[in-house]
Amino acid sequence: MKSPASIAKPAPAPLRKISGGVLAPSGFTGGAAACGIKDGRAARADLAFLACPTPCAAAGTFTTNAVKAAPVRVSMRHLRRGVARGVILNSGNANACTGEPGMAAARDMAAAAAGKIGARPSEILVCSTGRIGIPLPIERIHAGLQTLKLSRAVGTPMARAIMTSDTFPKQIAVEVASTAGKFRIGAMAKGAGMINPDMATMLCVVTTDAVVEASLLREALRDAVAESFNRITVDGDMSTNDTVLALANGASGVHPHEGDLAKGLRYVTSELARMMVLDGEGVSRFIELEVRGAASARDARIAAEAVANSTLVKCAWAGGDPNWGRIMDALGYSGARIREDRIRMDYAGLPIVRGGIATPTPWKKLRAAAAKPTLRIQIDLGLGDHAHEVWTTDLTEEYVRLNLGE
Amino acid sequence: MKSPASIAKPAPAPLRKISGGVLAPSGFTGGAAACGIKDGRAARADLAFLACPTPCAAAGTFTTNAVKAAPVRVSMRHLRRGVARGVILNSGNANACTGEPGMAAARDMAAAAAGKIGARPSEILVCSTGRIGIPLPIERIHAGLQTLKLSRAVGTPMARAIMTSDTFPKQIAVEVASTAGKFRIGAMAKGAGMINPDMATMLCVVTTDAVVEASLLREALRDAVAESFNRITVDGDMSTNDTVLALANGASGVHPHEGDLAKGLRYVTSELARMMVLDGEGVSRFIELEVRGAASARDARIAAEAVANSTLVKCAWAGGDPNWGRIMDALGYSGARIREDRIRMDYAGLPIVRGGIATPTPWKKLRAAAAKPTLRIQIDLGLGDHAHEVWTTDLTEEYVRLNLGE
Repeated sequence: MKSPASIAKPAPAPLRKISGGVLAPSGFTGGAAACGIKDGRAARADLAFLACPTPCAAAGTFTTNAVKAAPVRVSMRHLRRGVARGVILNSGNANACTGEPGMAAARDMAAAAAGKIGARPSEILVCSTGRIGIPLPIERIHAGLQTLKLSRAVGTPMARAIMTSDTFPKQIAVEVASTAGKFRIGAMAKGAGMINPDMATMLCVVTTDAVVEASLLREALRDAVAESFNRITVDGDMSTNDTVLALANGASGVHPHEGDLAKGLRYVTSELARMMVLDGEGVSRFIELEVRGAASARDARIAAEAVANSTLVKCAWAGGDPNWGRIMDALGYSGARIREDRIRMDYAGLPIVRGGIATPTPWKKLRAAAAKPTLRIQIDLGLGDHAHEVWTTDLTEEYVRLNLGE
Repeated sequence: MKSPASIAKPAPAPLRKISGGVLAPSGFTGGAAACGIKDGRAARADLAFLACPTPCAAAGTFTTNAVKAAPVRVSMRHLRRGVARGVILNSGNANACTGEPGMAAARDMAAAAAGKIGARPSEILVCSTGRIGIPLPIERIHAGLQTLKLSRAVGTPMARAIMTSDTFPKQIAVEVASTAGKFRIGAMAKGAGMINPDMATMLCVVTTDAVVEASLLREALRDAVAESFNRITVDGDMSTNDTVLALANGASGVHPHEGDLAKGLRYVTSELARMMVLDGEGVSRFIELEVRGAASARDARIAAEAVANSTLVKCAWAGGDPNWGRIMDALGYSGARIREDRIRMDYAGLPIVRGGIATPTPWKKLRAAAAKPTLRIQIDLGLGDHAHEVWTTDLTEEYVRLNLGE
């Protein structure tokens, strides 16, 4: 199931899907280059540069992992003023656990990119993704930046350049017909690795030509991330490099209504999050898991995460087995308050558990539902009115094969 | 690597390994029967009964899962007085998530077993293991109990009767040459399922002919479990049915020194825990993981568990890839206090990380070490003097295949 179209949701008004990806909004340019960061052979693009001739309002959210890659630390620092003119990204090397030389390399990357467009180094944000603990071959990035040409129609090559084990480039763009006028939002991302519980690095860059202040952009981005990327990651279980950045250059001249900006951001980040899950390594099923009726927001979250992260539950999903017993087991050890005899569960719309025990729904019907490529599971704890939704995947033999390492 | 001998540790003085398993201590009898609990076909033994003609001091530890199987609830209640005369166990059906009829069936099981030896139903403990959510066919257990003959030399058939996906029976016995005289400890267990993070049901029954008071037995059992089974499970991540029981009938007449009893219990439970890990579904490697230098006991535990439960780390172990980056990532999101630049890691005795970055140890040497069937990984967080050790396994394609479900 590697076609993004298979789970895409249509854009709701006033949004209209357009092409162009992260370069769809006016005023941004970009480029991609192959510089052989991983192994010296410049076989595929591994460097992307997003640039803007004018300063942009900028915001970001970063990994909560206590081990933070050098580019994350550099970007956090450069974002302090809420202004940026570009983002330089590489794949093939995470520049994580690389000590002081890694920090120097990340700063050097920013400085080299800044030099190319006459910006200050602190106006450039940096992202890296790839293997941890290998020194970043910064001289190859210098060479790559030299050959890289900035232009307007290279959204797809840029999205390709940041791929690692992703099987397709992830990008999206919308035009928003706001009451104040039309503006655009574009974005690219990379994900893969199994989403939950050990996400491979997730990177996302969002651009818009709306006129937005940095503080508002920060808030809108935080909300959008909460309803998209945070649904596919587990609180705290983030990679050393996870980064979501947003740049608003104001080139459209449109000051959008906050609601329109929020709607647009939420849509692009949600679609990218769904693409990431879909493209998880060895994924054969996409699972929407909703826990409601929880006694607290935390209970709803930890219950959903325990189920989504259970390897036994994930294996049953892979096998198309509607094994609700493994789900009950995970709810039981999740730490959430539960009362076994109040639990209700629906499997693809079919009642499977009522009052903590099996319903008479025919097993054949449940198996047919569990065999579909996308599956919605709804759990009602019957104790309160808090809910949490996560999007996750099954666990397949192929996933293990892909992650055996070198 | 399915040979218990491959990871067995020799018994330290004053212990001497003996045969007989759970029936090795004097005064216990037992039996096994095939009653077709799973599918009506009485092809393999699925019922075991351990009995004693006299009341025993009894203690137990049970799953912390909020969803507790009926036999767990019944055994907890029956243990209140600290006295028992027997344990009835079945495989093929967990009698979990079975509502009030399940509770009635578990009580009925105890009553039927009690009837066989003229005991009170409250003197019988009950264990079940198998699929969740299926009504227990109690009439087959009645029939099985009728045919079951109690005798002395059936430790192995009993250990076989409680197996589910286990590939070998798990039992052990020792004679303890205590300063007060000789006494014996025997035990049987079943495990399998991948140990961590979603343990299949773990059952263990320990017998001894030492003279021990129930309160002392409870304390000694709790300590032994902490250093054995709790090393292979993750706090809270327990199945609906996990149970460890100990019965002391005093038949040897020996009042052992507390230390000798503790040593014996620790040895038998540790050996059984190691056998369970070894027999985990699809296991190809046994991993001893030690985290030390943690700022608190909790930090040591959550750091070790995050590493042991990371599917990416486990896949790398399966592939024989000494991928320390994935371990750093897991330490980072574990929630434990860490300082990246203080982390030291040894891989099978070889320095692999110092000050948070790679050592010059040749990769070839590290790969050779990572390819061995047992592996010890030592992580020093460099922040304090708390330590925690867990025993875990890799994650293989075979594991996924075995858990696809029906």
